[in-house]
Amino acid sequence: MSEIKKIAVLTSGGDAPGMNSAVRAVVFSANNLGIEVVGVLRGYEGLIDWETVPLGLDDVRNINNQGGTILFTSRSERFLDQKYRHIAAENLRAHDVDAVVAIGGDGTLRGAIKFKDEGVDIVCIPGTIDRDVACSEYTLGFDTAANTAMEAIDKIRDSSVSHGRCSVVEVMGRKRGYIALWAGMATSADAIVLPEKWDGNFDYIINALRKRHTDGRNSYLVVVAEGVTDAGKLADLIQKETGIESRVSVLGYIQRGGQPTAKDRMYGSLMGAYAIEILRQGRGNRIVAIKNDILVDYDIAEAIGLHNNNLDSFQYQLSLMLAE
Amino acid sequence: MSEIKKIAVLTSGGDAPGMNSAVRAVVFSANNLGIEVVGVLRGYEGLIDWETVPLGLDDVRNINNQGGTILFTSRSERFLDQKYRHIAAENLRAHDVDAVVAIGGDGTLRGAIKFKDEGVDIVCIPGTIDRDVACSEYTLGFDTAANTAMEAIDKIRDSSVSHGRCSVVEVMGRKRGYIALWAGMATSADAIVLPEKWDGNFDYIINALRKRHTDGRNSYLVVVAEGVTDAGKLADLIQKETGIESRVSVLGYIQRGGQPTAKDRMYGSLMGAYAIEILRQGRGNRIVAIKNDILVDYDIAEAIGLHNNNLDSFQYQLSLMLAE
Amino acid sequence: MSEIKKIAVLTSGGDAPGMNSAVRAVVFSANNLGIEVVGVLRGYEGLIDWETVPLGLDDVRNINNQGGTILFTSRSERFLDQKYRHIAAENLRAHDVDAVVAIGGDGTLRGAIKFKDEGVDIVCIPGTIDRDVACSEYTLGFDTAANTAMEAIDKIRDSSVSHGRCSVVEVMGRKRGYIALWAGMATSADAIVLPEKWDGNFDYIINALRKRHTDGRNSYLVVVAEGVTDAGKLADLIQKETGIESRVSVLGYIQRGGQPTAKDRMYGSLMGAYAIEILRQGRGNRIVAIKNDILVDYDIAEAIGLHNNNLDSFQYQLSLMLAE
Amino acid sequence: MSEIKKIAVLTSGGDAPGMNSAVRAVVFSANNLGIEVVGVLRGYEGLIDWETVPLGLDDVRNINNQGGTILFTSRSERFLDQKYRHIAAENLRAHDVDAVVAIGGDGTLRGAIKFKDEGVDIVCIPGTIDRDVACSEYTLGFDTAANTAMEAIDKIRDSSVSHGRCSVVEVMGRKRGYIALWAGMATSADAIVLPEKWDGNFDYIINALRKRHTDGRNSYLVVVAEGVTDAGKLADLIQKETGIESRVSVLGYIQRGGQPTAKDRMYGSLMGAYAIEILRQGRGNRIVAIKNDILVDYDIAEAIGLHNNNLDSFQYQLSLMLAE
Repeated sequence: MSEIKKIAVLTSGGDAPGMNSAVRAVVFSANNLGIEVVGVLRGYEGLIDWETVPLGLDDVRNINNQGGTILFTSRSERFLDQKYRHIAAENLRAHDVDAVVAIGGDGTLRGAIKFKDEGVDIVCIPGTIDRDVACSEYTLGFDTAANTAMEAIDKIRDSSVSHGRCSVVEVMGRKRGYIALWAGMATSADAIVLPEKWDGNFDYIINALRKRHTDGRNSYLVVVAEGVTDAGKLADLIQKETGIESRVSVLGYIQRGGQPTAKDRMYGSLMGAYAIEILRQGRGNRIVAIKNDILVDYDIAEAIGLHNNNLDSFQYQLSLMLAE
Repeated sequence: MSEIKKIAVLTSGGDAPGMNSAVRAVVFSANNLGIEVVGVLRGYEGLIDWETVPLGLDDVRNINNQGGTILFTSRSERFLDQKYRHIAAENLRAHDVDAVVAIGGDGTLRGAIKFKDEGVDIVCIPGTIDRDVACSEYTLGFDTAANTAMEAIDKIRDSSVSHGRCSVVEVMGRKRGYIALWAGMATSADAIVLPEKWDGNFDYIINALRKRHTDGRNSYLVVVAEGVTDAGKLADLIQKETGIESRVSVLGYIQRGGQPTAKDRMYGSLMGAYAIEILRQGRGNRIVAIKNDILVDYDIAEAIGLHNNNLDSFQYQLSLMLAE
Repeated sequence: MSEIKKIAVLTSGGDAPGMNSAVRAVVFSANNLGIEVVGVLRGYEGLIDWETVPLGLDDVRNINNQGGTILFTSRSERFLDQKYRHIAAENLRAHDVDAVVAIGGDGTLRGAIKFKDEGVDIVCIPGTIDRDVACSEYTLGFDTAANTAMEAIDKIRDSSVSHGRCSVVEVMGRKRGYIALWAGMATSADAIVLPEKWDGNFDYIINALRKRHTDGRNSYLVVVAEGVTDAGKLADLIQKETGIESRVSVLGYIQRGGQPTAKDRMYGSLMGAYAIEILRQGRGNRIVAIKNDILVDYDIAEAIGLHNNNLDSFQYQLSLMLAE
Repeated sequence: MSEIKKIAVLTSGGDAPGMNSAVRAVVFSANNLGIEVVGVLRGYEGLIDWETVPLGLDDVRNINNQGGTILFTSRSERFLDQKYRHIAAENLRAHDVDAVVAIGGDGTLRGAIKFKDEGVDIVCIPGTIDRDVACSEYTLGFDTAANTAMEAIDKIRDSSVSHGRCSVVEVMGRKRGYIALWAGMATSADAIVLPEKWDGNFDYIINALRKRHTDGRNSYLVVVAEGVTDAGKLADLIQKETGIESRVSVLGYIQRGGQPTAKDRMYGSLMGAYAIEILRQGRGNRIVAIKNDILVDYDIAEAIGLHNNNLDSFQYQLSLMLAE
C-alpha cells in the first residue's frame, strides 16, 4: 500500500453509541497526518451511490456525546452483489480514495472481506451493541446498551415490587447473551435466559420461581435475550405454572440510542485512532480488536473464521449463584 | 368528625412516582399534630386482611427519591364486594383508626365513595401516571412518566434517524392522551395519536408522512397512546402505504417506575400535607386536587360525577402545528 | 402595528433549558402565518452588530432536546447605552424586521422596555432558571435546573450518608430561593437557607442539627441558595459548633445546562407560540407570562413595576415541617 | 488457614459506587459455601468498637443499584495505632470470625498489611473512584465516577457554548489523572491537566487556547484533576492572558455518589465472589486485582510495594491529538 492521502469512513449495520467517537478520532488522526477524509453516508449504500460529505475537524469536533451515527447507516442488500461492489470500488478510485474505514458489526465485516477482491484497502472497527464480533472482547455500543437496559429494568422493578409481580424483560443481543447477562446481573435478576445456554427447557426457571414464591418472596425478575424464546409466552407460562402475576416488557430500540457512556466514547476514540495507525503503517484488510483489554488487530479473513459462542465462564457461574 | 388520634395511609391501583413523597408528608404532618400513623400494605387488600406497619418519621425520612410505593399496591377485587368493605371498616374500628388517606387513581376513588357507607372518613390523593382523575389538573406520577417516555423516545429517535426509518412508539395513559401529548411534543413527533381525538381514520397520518417523504425528510416519529389502536399494525400500515421502513416500540412498564422528578416529589409532599390539613379541619370524604395550580379539595361523590375528556385546546392545536 | 411580515428572535442573559423549544415554536408559528424569521446571535449584541441567521423549519426541527441556546446569548453592556440601541433599531429597519421576540430574564426585560423608545415592537418570553421574573409564576429552565440540582444532591447524599457527614450544598437562583426550596424539599434536606427568609442568623440551623445529632441521626443535608451566605463558611461553622464533620459542594454551572425536561420543552413551545399569537393580534411591548398555570401577557412596563419577594407560603411552611 | 465458618466484611476509605455489589456477592458466595457473614459498620472503626450487623441474603438482595455503601465507611485514625488493631483482632476472635474482606483504596490496603501482624486473615478488594491502587487496572467506582463527571461536563458545556466562554472544570482523582483523562476525552476537552504529566507550566494551555481563539472558536473546555493546581486561579489566568471569559466549576462530591453503572455492579459482583474463592482455597493476605481485564490476586505486601505513576501512553498521546 503506497502512501495514503485520502480515506473514506462509513458506519454500517445497526447503529451503536460510540460510532461517532470513532468517526471523530478517524478524522482527527487522519488530519494529524495530513490525510483528507470523506464521510460516506448510509454505509455501503453510500459507497455505491457515492453519497458523501467532506469531513474536517469542525464537522466532528463536538459529536462525542451524540447517539446514533452522524453518517447514517444501513444494511446494504446491493453490496452483497459483486456488480455493486465493483461500482463502489470504481467510485473510490474515481475520487482518489486510498482506503476505507468501516465501522460496524458482523455484516460489515462480511462485506469488507468480499470488497478486498475489488482491490480496496479496508480497516474495520467493531461497532455493534451485541458484542458478537468473535475476534474482539469489546464492540462499540455494548456498554451504553447494557447501561440503558439496566436503567430500564431498574425502573420496571420499581413497579414490579410495588405490585408483587414477576417481570419478564426481553433485551437485545441477537445471538449473544452479553446484554442479558450484564443487565440481568446488575439488576439482581432471579433468572437470566441466554442463547448460549438455552436448552429449550423452562423447568429450572419455573422451579426456581416456585421455590422463592414458597419462601415468601414478593417480586421476581426474569431477563431474556431476544431470539431465545417468546418473552410474552414465558410470562404466561410463569403465571400459569406458579400463580405469580407476570408481565412482559420488550425494551426494544431504546437500547440502540442515547448519549454514549464514557467507555464507548473512550474506546471509540481509541479504535478510530488505531485504525488510522494501521493504515499509516501501510497495512490493510485488518480489523481493530480488543484482546485482554489491549488494542490489537486481525486479518479480516482470519477474524471471520473465528467463532465464539462461549460466555465468560466465571461470569456465567456467578450469575447463577447470585440469582439465588 | 371528632378529634383524630390515629390514621391509616395506603396506596392503591397502578403505582406512580411521587406516592412515596405523599406518604412521607402524611407521616410528617400527622406526627406534627400528634397523630399516629399506620401504613396499610397492598392498598384496600391490606385493609381487609389488616396487613399493616407502624409508620414513624424514621420509616419515611429518606423515601422521596424512591420509585414505586413502599406500601405496595393492588387493584382489589374483593373491595368491590360490600362484605369485604365491612370487614375492612371493622378492622379500622378495632384498631382505633379514625380516618384513612388513600393515594391512587380513579379506581381508588370509586372504592372510597363506597367505603363512606361503612362510616369511614377518607381523604383521597390523586396518584396515577395517567392524569385521568377528572377533578384535578394534576395527578402524582404524570411528570415522571412524561419525562421517562420523552427520554426513551429521544433514544429511539437516535436509531430512527441513523437508519432513516419511521418509529411508531406506544406510550401509556389508559383513556387519556396526556403522556402521548407531552412526550410527543417534547420529542418533535410528526404525528401524535390521542384517544380524545381519535376517529378511526389513519389517512391524515399517512398523508402527512407521505408528503414529508416527498419533501425529502429522512426520519419520522409517530407517538400513539395505548388503547387507541394497535401500534404494530399502524407501523405495518405506514410501511405499506408510504414505503417508509417502520418499526414499533412499546414503552411499557418503564413509564411507571424510576426516581420521581422534582415536581412529583414536591406535589406529593404538598398533597400529603394538605390531606392531613383537611382531616385536622374535621372534614372527610374529600379528594385533594389541583385547580389553576392551587391546592383545593372536592367532595368525593362530586369528584366522581365530574367527567373530562377534553385536552387543553391550545396545547392540542399547537401539537398539530409544531408537527409540520 | 401594521401587518407583520418579518420578525427577529433572540435569547439573552443567562442561558436556560427550554429556550430552544421557544425558538422552535416561534419559527413554526411564524411560518404558519407566512412570517419570515431571522435569528439574532448573542442576544442584544447581535442586534447591534447585526449578526444573524435565517431560521426556517429545517433549522429548528429537532432542537427540542438540546440544552443551552442555539442562538447563543450574552449580557450586553452596550445595549444599556442609547447610542447602541439606536444602531440596533436602525439595523432592524434596514432589514425590514417588523418586531422582535426576546427570550430571557430580568435584564432582558429591562433592555426591552428601553428599546420601545426606539419604536421597536417587542414581545418578551421569560427564560431563566432563577424563576425571578415577578409577573410570571414560571420561567423557562426552572424545572430542568431544579431537577438537575435535585439529582446532584441525591448523589451527594449517598456519600454523605456513607460517611455520616453533613453536606452543605449551594445551588443557584440569584435573589430567589425557588431552586433551593424545590431541590431541598425533594432531597429531604434538614435545612434550606432561602434569601427571602434569611435574617443573618444561623442559630436555628445549628440548633436543629445539634438536636438531631443528639437524637442519633447519622447524616445531614443543608441546601443554601447562592448569595445568601458563604456555603463554605457555613460548613465550617456547623462543624465547629456541632462537631459534625461537614463538607461543602457548590453545584455551579451544571444547573444551567443539560437536555430540557418535558415541562421546559412543553412550556417553551407554548410560550413561543403565544408570543407569535400576540404579534398576530397586532399587539407589542408585551411579556408572555404564566398566571394560575394559564398563558397570559402583560405590558412590559407594568411587568417591570411588579415586585415579588414572596415564596409560596404553604410550600415554605411545609419545607420547615418536613425537615423535622 | 483452617476451614472458614464465619467472615466479616467491611468498606473503608472514600465511598465508591459498586461497593454494595461487592458486599452482595461476598454474602451470596459465602452463603453458598455455608459461611456466615457479619457486616462491620464504618470500616476499621467498626472493628475496633465491634459495631456489626448480621448479613443474610435478604439483607443484600436488592442493593446493586444503591450508591454509597450500606455498611458505611470511615478513614480510621485509631487503626493506625497498634493498640486499636489489637482490640479489633481480639473482637474478631471473640466472635469466632475467621477472616475479613475489606473493600477500599490505598489506605485500606495499608491498614490491612499491618493487621496481618495480629494474625488476622484478610482479603482486600480495590474500591475507590480514583483508580489509584497500583496492582489493579481497575478499582470499583471509577466507571461510575467517570460517567458522572462526563455527564456534568456535558451540561456545563451547554452553558459554555451558549455564552462563548471557557469552562475550567476540576474533577476528582487524588494523585491520579484517570477521571480527568476519561471525562476530558469523552467531552472533547481542549486541554486536560493531569498530575502524572504536570510540570508547573501553563504556557501550553494558554498558547493552545490563544491559537484557537484566533482561529475563531467560540467556546473552550479545560479539565483539571484535583490537586494539580487551583482551578479558579487557572480560570483567572486564562481570562487574563487570552481575553476569553472564563469560569470555574468544581464538581466535588457528586462524583462519589449515584447509582452504579453496569460495569461497577458487574465488577463489584465479580470481585466479591473472587474474594470468597480466595478464602475458600485457604489463602489470605491477598488483594483481588484486575490484570489484562482478568481477575487475579496479589500478596498485600507485594501490592503495596508496587508503584504506578504511568498513564496509558496511547490514551495520553491520543488525548493530546484529539484536543486539537
